[in-house]
Amino acid sequence: MKLWGGRFTQPTDELMERFNRSFDFDWRLYAADIRGSMAYAKALARAGIVTDEERGLLIEGLSQVLAEFEGGTFQPAPGDEDIHTAVERRLQELIGPVAGKLHTGRSRNDQVVTDVRLYLMDHLDRLDGLLGDLQAAIVEQAGAHLELLMPGYTHLQRAQPVRFSHWLLSYFWMLQRDRERLRDARQRTTVCPLGSGALAGHSLDIDRESLAGELGFEAISENSIDAVSDRDFILESLAAGAILGIHLSRLAEDLTLYCSAEFAFVELDEAYCTGSSLMPQKKNPDSVELMRGKAGRLVGNLVSLLVTLKGLPSAYDKDLQEDKEPLFDTLDTVELALPVAAGMIRTLSVNPDRMRAALDDSMLATDLADYLVRKGVPFRQAHDIVGRVVRYGIEQDKRLRDLSLAEWETVSPLFEADVADVFDFERAVERKASRGGTARSAVEAQIARARALMAC
Amino acid sequence: MKLWGGRFTQPTDELMERFNRSFDFDWRLYAADIRGSMAYAKALARAGIVTDEERGLLIEGLSQVLAEFEGGTFQPAPGDEDIHTAVERRLQELIGPVAGKLHTGRSRNDQVVTDVRLYLMDHLDRLDGLLGDLQAAIVEQAGAHLELLMPGYTHLQRAQPVRFSHWLLSYFWMLQRDRERLRDARQRTTVCPLGSGALAGHSLDIDRESLAGELGFEAISENSIDAVSDRDFILESLAAGAILGIHLSRLAEDLTLYCSAEFAFVELDEAYCTGSSLMPQKKNPDSVELMRGKAGRLVGNLVSLLVTLKGLPSAYDKDLQEDKEPLFDTLDTVELALPVAAGMIRTLSVNPDRMRAALDDSMLATDLADYLVRKGVPFRQAHDIVGRVVRYGIEQDKRLRDLSLAEWETVSPLFEADVADVFDFERAVERKASRGGTARSAVEAQIARARALMAC
Amino acid sequence: MKLWGGRFTQPTDELMERFNRSFDFDWRLYAADIRGSMAYAKALARAGIVTDEERGLLIEGLSQVLAEFEGGTFQPAPGDEDIHTAVERRLQELIGPVAGKLHTGRSRNDQVVTDVRLYLMDHLDRLDGLLGDLQAAIVEQAGAHLELLMPGYTHLQRAQPVRFSHWLLSYFWMLQRDRERLRDARQRTTVCPLGSGALAGHSLDIDRESLAGELGFEAISENSIDAVSDRDFILESLAAGAILGIHLSRLAEDLTLYCSAEFAFVELDEAYCTGSSLMPQKKNPDSVELMRGKAGRLVGNLVSLLVTLKGLPSAYDKDLQEDKEPLFDTLDTVELALPVAAGMIRTLSVNPDRMRAALDDSMLATDLADYLVRKGVPFRQAHDIVGRVVRYGIEQDKRLRDLSLAEWETVSPLFEADVADVFDFERAVERKASRGGTARSAVEAQIARARALMAC
Amino acid sequence: MKLWGGRFTQPTDELMERFNRSFDFDWRLYAADIRGSMAYAKALARAGIVTDEERGLLIEGLSQVLAEFEGGTFQPAPGDEDIHTAVERRLQELIGPVAGKLHTGRSRNDQVVTDVRLYLMDHLDRLDGLLGDLQAAIVEQAGAHLELLMPGYTHLQRAQPVRFSHWLLSYFWMLQRDRERLRDARQRTTVCPLGSGALAGHSLDIDRESLAGELGFEAISENSIDAVSDRDFILESLAAGAILGIHLSRLAEDLTLYCSAEFAFVELDEAYCTGSSLMPQKKNPDSVELMRGKAGRLVGNLVSLLVTLKGLPSAYDKDLQEDKEPLFDTLDTVELALPVAAGMIRTLSVNPDRMRAALDDSMLATDLADYLVRKGVPFRQAHDIVGRVVRYGIEQDKRLRDLSLAEWETVSPLFEADVADVFDFERAVERKASRGGTARSAVEAQIARARALMAC
Repeated sequence: MKLWGGRFTQPTDELMERFNRSFDFDWRLYAADIRGSMAYAKALARAGIVTDEERGLLIEGLSQVLAEFEGGTFQPAPGDEDIHTAVERRLQELIGPVAGKLHTGRSRNDQVVTDVRLYLMDHLDRLDGLLGDLQAAIVEQAGAHLELLMPGYTHLQRAQPVRFSHWLLSYFWMLQRDRERLRDARQRTTVCPLGSGALAGHSLDIDRESLAGELGFEAISENSIDAVSDRDFILESLAAGAILGIHLSRLAEDLTLYCSAEFAFVELDEAYCTGSSLMPQKKNPDSVELMRGKAGRLVGNLVSLLVTLKGLPSAYDKDLQEDKEPLFDTLDTVELALPVAAGMIRTLSVNPDRMRAALDDSMLATDLADYLVRKGVPFRQAHDIVGRVVRYGIEQDKRLRDLSLAEWETVSPLFEADVADVFDFERAVERKASRGGTARSAVEAQIARARALMAC
Repeated sequence: MKLWGGRFTQPTDELMERFNRSFDFDWRLYAADIRGSMAYAKALARAGIVTDEERGLLIEGLSQVLAEFEGGTFQPAPGDEDIHTAVERRLQELIGPVAGKLHTGRSRNDQVVTDVRLYLMDHLDRLDGLLGDLQAAIVEQAGAHLELLMPGYTHLQRAQPVRFSHWLLSYFWMLQRDRERLRDARQRTTVCPLGSGALAGHSLDIDRESLAGELGFEAISENSIDAVSDRDFILESLAAGAILGIHLSRLAEDLTLYCSAEFAFVELDEAYCTGSSLMPQKKNPDSVELMRGKAGRLVGNLVSLLVTLKGLPSAYDKDLQEDKEPLFDTLDTVELALPVAAGMIRTLSVNPDRMRAALDDSMLATDLADYLVRKGVPFRQAHDIVGRVVRYGIEQDKRLRDLSLAEWETVSPLFEADVADVFDFERAVERKASRGGTARSAVEAQIARARALMAC
Repeated sequence: MKLWGGRFTQPTDELMERFNRSFDFDWRLYAADIRGSMAYAKALARAGIVTDEERGLLIEGLSQVLAEFEGGTFQPAPGDEDIHTAVERRLQELIGPVAGKLHTGRSRNDQVVTDVRLYLMDHLDRLDGLLGDLQAAIVEQAGAHLELLMPGYTHLQRAQPVRFSHWLLSYFWMLQRDRERLRDARQRTTVCPLGSGALAGHSLDIDRESLAGELGFEAISENSIDAVSDRDFILESLAAGAILGIHLSRLAEDLTLYCSAEFAFVELDEAYCTGSSLMPQKKNPDSVELMRGKAGRLVGNLVSLLVTLKGLPSAYDKDLQEDKEPLFDTLDTVELALPVAAGMIRTLSVNPDRMRAALDDSMLATDLADYLVRKGVPFRQAHDIVGRVVRYGIEQDKRLRDLSLAEWETVSPLFEADVADVFDFERAVERKASRGGTARSAVEAQIARARALMAC
Repeated sequence: MKLWGGRFTQPTDELMERFNRSFDFDWRLYAADIRGSMAYAKALARAGIVTDEERGLLIEGLSQVLAEFEGGTFQPAPGDEDIHTAVERRLQELIGPVAGKLHTGRSRNDQVVTDVRLYLMDHLDRLDGLLGDLQAAIVEQAGAHLELLMPGYTHLQRAQPVRFSHWLLSYFWMLQRDRERLRDARQRTTVCPLGSGALAGHSLDIDRESLAGELGFEAISENSIDAVSDRDFILESLAAGAILGIHLSRLAEDLTLYCSAEFAFVELDEAYCTGSSLMPQKKNPDSVELMRGKAGRLVGNLVSLLVTLKGLPSAYDKDLQEDKEPLFDTLDTVELALPVAAGMIRTLSVNPDRMRAALDDSMLATDLADYLVRKGVPFRQAHDIVGRVVRYGIEQDKRLRDLSLAEWETVSPLFEADVADVFDFERAVERKASRGGTARSAVEAQIARARALMAC
């Protein structure tokens, strides 16, 4: 069955049929499609287009189609070019010609975008929960290891000591912004296009507000031409997904480094690693590598739809059929990556000895400069003096704390015996006590704020 | 002057210096940089790091540097690797060693991202205004031509008659979503990272809240490691810019078509066209073609930064220097394209005769099906019957309104003499009177809602 | 069965197993994988690692696995994490422990990239044929309509008359470059990495040259570390696919325009169109719209892999598993789009009357300027004079050929009665007789060159 | 001066003029533009369109314009919308109306693409040389450190010992493929479009072959419509640039790791590092981080032009003006990154002690499995046994070489006293002696092949 054959005299080319067919991927929309059709049947009844009895038949038939999909017994027919055709075809088989009334005043143009919006609203809610669970895993681990110090890096060079918890919590905030972005995207998704017809609106007495309300939409579209071709909500979700992918790739990069033999700050649980077919000793961090690598498809999916939409004339063009696969792939990817990440974080072991051992004295160079600042040296000059101390240490191959007072004085007479007090990593960390800093109190406050946000 | 020489014994390679240098593009941040430094000087004074007198000197000196930039008299020095170095170098020339106190507890890592946030906040506000002005141009033209009918297209095939105003207003809503997205992005931009130091926070008694308030930020960052490497706010602005670019490209595509000789629905003002160096007759719609073509760079800029950020270790890496050029290019592009678009829309001429002439009877096929539906035929069957009517018309090369009653009845006995009433484009349009439809009343209501939004 | 369990004490997390699993998409490589293993079994025998009898067992077993795949009877097991595991697992079931010898000295790292190269070589050959067939369709149509004139457009404004064949042939050359690019990519694909082990090479006496030769490779890799992580050949194929996608999108755009009611230069066969579920009159050019829209995924696939590879450490990382889906999708897309395009071109109808009717006098403005040039006027001045003639025609609403001699003379005394001779579209076209021009002889020569290239 | 004013009655809008103007970036094409015009002047003379005297005047005038550009004295005028207008305007000032003859039969459409091709051909040659120089630096360093062993990594986990030279040379082959790709792109760049006019060809007796030859092109375009809108050669160069960018990003990633304190295998020369404005001890590898980060813009530039071209109608559209900035940026980026990379490689210090210290016994696990294979155990079973040995070592916290024979026998009775012989990294490396392997002889052969290729 085709929904459009009357004007045609020739069959569709066979390859063209495959080229055109979307059922292979849009069958996923079945629940949304049927839900939309049930609400539409009621709206048609309210508008007097179908009788109450017909409405009953339609809804009962649709329930049965839904049951077939959910039970895995739905049989696609060769001509089911898309999910809408498949459902209507099956409905007709079940309830006869009255099925043909369901499409009155409705076009696949407004139907498909209603379906995708409903589908996406559900998945955005699910994503929000998955993000929250990953955040919870981070806060748990951070809370459990508040005392651990490790090197903080910039340019992958040791920079200043920080708390392990502080490092880990940095990802909490990235994920928090992801949640906000996805919530913002949801606001622009929960807009009902149904009732826009092919592009011009509909000619029936359908009450779009109540139809939208019944489907759980929070707003309705204001222009029928825009309504059938607006894919912003998908683009925006794909963009939020790509940015989330960047965050996961950065977390993954950090963990790949930290679980290497050279860093060895953490160890991934075996449940999140695999081995090598050739090298028996290997325990590879595949979970984090895949988290990093999948940033590629998340960015690619976004680009894919941006390119498809670029330069299209307004209203519906068939090109828009290309919107679904990137969206589905982004959702699938993120919905699997997030719980894997949460499990991997929850089961992560830490190696306090290796972290401590990696703290070296030159990471206190800024504290040395601050020491001079407290003696009245302008910071820029203090920086220069300490730079020369560091160079001296490298040339003499000595740890800074092992320099004699005489050696300190050679570089600058401002150094006195109390310079030795600088060499305490814990104290250096505790000085960073302002909001957002790495001192214990600041990290505890940070965790409290994180917990408060999660409770929202 | 370098801000970091003490530890080094060798000069930087000359090509490396060019490779590393960002002053050629980041000089734009001068106002934000100096504003940030002025606020920081005050914060240092409040924290007792500089005296009130020193604060006065710093602020006076910074004012003078600002004046030099704004007056076009600032002289860059060969060693000015970035805007921060340039400002501090010049400040030192002007006020001597006290300049060296300004950087106490501050790193370029937190400074640069503070600068970019301040810069972007200004430009997002500017963009909001430019979008509003383009919306206003659209509403003006739509309001001025409410009576005009034209073909609505799907698949670039004539679909149903719509009002020209309705078509034009479809772009109002796209731009409205762009504004919303940019406002959401602004919420995540107005977060002050200053006080995060290199990555671990600062050791001074600086009150981050009041510092942020003084600079006009609405929030402050909660984790110093995240703060120095978070570029989400740029990504999000680039993504919103890319989506806006897609909208402009679609408007441009419509206008390129509509001002072709074949459509000729509208004419661009000469002020927005150029000619050919070879063909004397040409009046080319360069403005709209450039609007369409520039979607490329807007998407490219987004991809550029996504790729740069992918897989970076956390905290600051030098790669982040690559964040500015795509951002500046996107802002420049959109800030020029939007007013050009507004001017082009305001000066657009319409050609009512050509629009009318392009309405053909087959565009009322859906209304014919509705005619049958009103006689009780299920829509799907009605669709099929009308499809056959259309085919008959094509085969006989006759306009549908010219078919005899006998011919109608050949296809279906349900057609009666009153079928002639269907052939009225105005009436067909007026039936689409529900919210978001193309009937006059619906378009008027749409304009009223648009005006209300613009007044926000 | 896992290929790596010995060192592990815990099972893999269930979600992680799904995250890690590639069998769902890499099963496609079965033929290449088994072909590679057969050749490897022979190489192992030549090197004395397995006996001739064992080699026989291995090859027989592999043949049976191949037969199961081809016959659709292969039963995947839950632990088949990838095609390599699946084949080895099944082989072991069939022939017992000797199956465990097949992997001696071989890693999945060199195996998988051997498989993908073999798979791609086949598909590049197939693509070359499909491109050739689309070129043939173009040359056929061009040859059949040599006499047809139509407007040539720049900026979508009528520019100069051209032959329809000339327009259509412009796509021949784009496709020719696509073929060249794909052939160049094939040169860098036909390089055998087998024998590179995990990353360091192998320790056996395997003759890599004869192994490569047996598999049909034309070269072998020169560095084992590069060999296991080189994905350039995929990137290059994806880039060539994206550029091909751009070409198809441009052809599609032209055809979408030309089959609109406003242009109506061509008509697509019904076999390449579909209808509307709502509007009975619609015959939509879905085939060309999908050709245009699918440029999105072709670009997206390229970006996807570029992002995945960016910033990876050398040698094999698990991220590389993400290379296959974009490649498969690009191949699937192009291998379906090309024959659809060829069928669509072959069945295209042309509408000579509409093309002729669209030629208007101002398209001869350049010829008018040439007329003045022949009278000694510098071209730039001639251009200006003719520009004013065109302006005059617009203001008077007259076709240029209808201007009186007096009117011509008003603009410039250089116009004489013979200016009337300029108004002959055929003659204007025939003057473009140099190589690559639109005169009949030039187009015939172009077709001859095209045919010669296709015969290569 | 405009090249197209005659038909217009109104001035261009001021913002539109800025939007339209390309001189700010296309002035770079001046040398190519003037070279093209000189050749065209000669062709016009040969075709009898200008006299020999006029030709002399044109060439002399053009030489003077060229001299002004090269001497930095060229004064742009406000109306110079592009480089072509600027040159023709200046030429007219210098030689009067005869300048107006230069454009006879030529359009900016064929002129601009001729210019870009000439410009790109020069730069592709330059790039080839720069790539060769980076390859030379790699071969030099590899040759100087043949004896150094280091851990080879997969998944960033220690895998098998390799020669440092072997690791470094892996980049030689990536760069070799880059050179090949750029040479292939050059083949499709050296095609002369001049003589294609606006889109239809020219009407003069210009000999395109000799014109092309004079400009150094190796072929001429075969279809004028394709010729003016073909930008494949730019896309292809951008794609090759993006792939090169991926290679540089991977080299950069390796070096960022290897010069971290945790690996410390190499040290970058100070000439390729910079410091921190806050932390006096920092020596940051900015050169390699920028090499990694700039992959972003190289991919972004490619995407930018792909998006711009997507869906354009054939022949020239103004959108094509957007082709130049991404190309120029890619060339600039790569032409600076390559010599920086070469200098950085040439000045790199190695740290043999750290490399050696990072080799640990479990990296010989595959050799242990081979030991069992030599005793007749199928590899898969051997892999499993050794996996259990590794597990035992971890649990006992013992190096494998320190296990007693009794402990070996506990895992498998197949282990005998000679298992101790396996623990020799040098010998393990030397076993990988086949082509492309990491044994000394194989690496020497690899270097010989590399040198032979560089000599081409």
